Amino acid sequence: MGQSGRFITLEGGEGTGKSTLIKGLATRFAERGHTVITTREPGGTALAEEVRTLALTPPVEGEWSPLAHALLMNTARDDHLNQVIRPALARGDWVICDRFSDSTLAYQSIDGVDVAALVRLQEIVVGETAPDLTLVLDAPPSALFDRRRQRDTSDVFEAKDLTFHDRVRGAFLAIADTYVELCVVLDALQSPEELLKAALAVIDARWATT
Amino acid sequence: MGQSGRFITLEGGEGTGKSTLIKGLATRFAERGHTVITTREPGGTALAEEVRTLALTPPVEGEWSPLAHALLMNTARDDHLNQVIRPALARGDWVICDRFSDSTLAYQSIDGVDVAALVRLQEIVVGETAPDLTLVLDAPPSALFDRRRQRDTSDVFEAKDLTFHDRVRGAFLAIADTYVELCVVLDALQSPEELLKAALAVIDARWATT
Repeated sequence: MGQSGRFITLEGGEGTGKSTLIKGLATRFAERGHTVITTREPGGTALAEEVRTLALTPPVEGEWSPLAHALLMNTARDDHLNQVIRPALARGDWVICDRFSDSTLAYQSIDGVDVAALVRLQEIVVGETAPDLTLVLDAPPSALFDRRRQRDTSDVFEAKDLTFHDRVRGAFLAIADTYVELCVVLDALQSPEELLKAALAVIDARWATT
Repeated sequence: MGQSGRFITLEGGEGTGKSTLIKGLATRFAERGHTVITTREPGGTALAEEVRTLALTPPVEGEWSPLAHALLMNTARDDHLNQVIRPALARGDWVICDRFSDSTLAYQSIDGVDVAALVRLQEIVVGETAPDLTLVLDAPPSALFDRRRQRDTSDVFEAKDLTFHDRVRGAFLAIADTYVELCVVLDALQSPEELLKAALAVIDARWATT
């Protein structure tokens, strides 16, 4: 164990439980003897954070085009790959990343960027460091909204944004449908314990013979 | 005249006389009744300048990869296209740009970025706004160095950098050789007056029937 690095990404809309699942997976992988790196996008390195800041707050009058936004996200990703992900995989670590290129594909395609252009950008920047497995946490945004409202008042998103979140969900499901070898969709309405169990079952099935 | 916009880019290494030629062309085009926009890369808009600054001076410890640099240059280009070049062409103006995507192709390929990746990036960002004509100003860097040294002491580049400038020259000539329909190579060792005359001859020949 621990000899061969794995690159696992978690994708899905806001409030689907990605952070909690990552903590659970990291603990289990460490128990199994792997060195585990957990990281996240956008960000993950100091340079990537600078690019992210530039993307979110253009410092002069003006506005990035959706394509410029996608280019900036991929610039940040390039640094994240070079500084964090590739060195970790080269060492044989297990890398779990909270959002990765599929998030750019989902959100920027909703913003109107041509999907083919986004896929080509992804190929240029990610190259041979594509994830070994992508877990797509899926739930109807309305159900997440109701569940969260019952729990507390700090809603990740408002009811009025449901249309947008429905589009995000649709974009992620379309990606999972396109990359069936890579992506596994998990029901995000399960309890955190059930979700972790389901994710581990997928991972163990995938690498049972390795 | 003035009904149909044209997009002309000037490319070539340092000291080949691009700025002087642009002034001459702009004057002649204006005399012919065109509205002329002269602009330059990297830069051309406030947002593009911000990206350029980020590319040249990473604000934290770290260094952009050559690919990240190419992504940032293309992010700046996207804004330049959207804010300046496309609106001008849509109005029917003649746009003359000092350096454009071929400079990214030349310099970043020398830095080690895969040429195919650079071409795909260019296709994504430039799209249908490819130049109508690219004038490549060409001269042996050693000759430019000697000429400039005779004139004054503010050399654009030092003799020790000749190897690099020879590579830049080779990269531009390779681009001109690949895109023969688009690019015309002009001898940059001509006098400014001769160079302007040669450039106008190319332009008039290209659009004689339009």
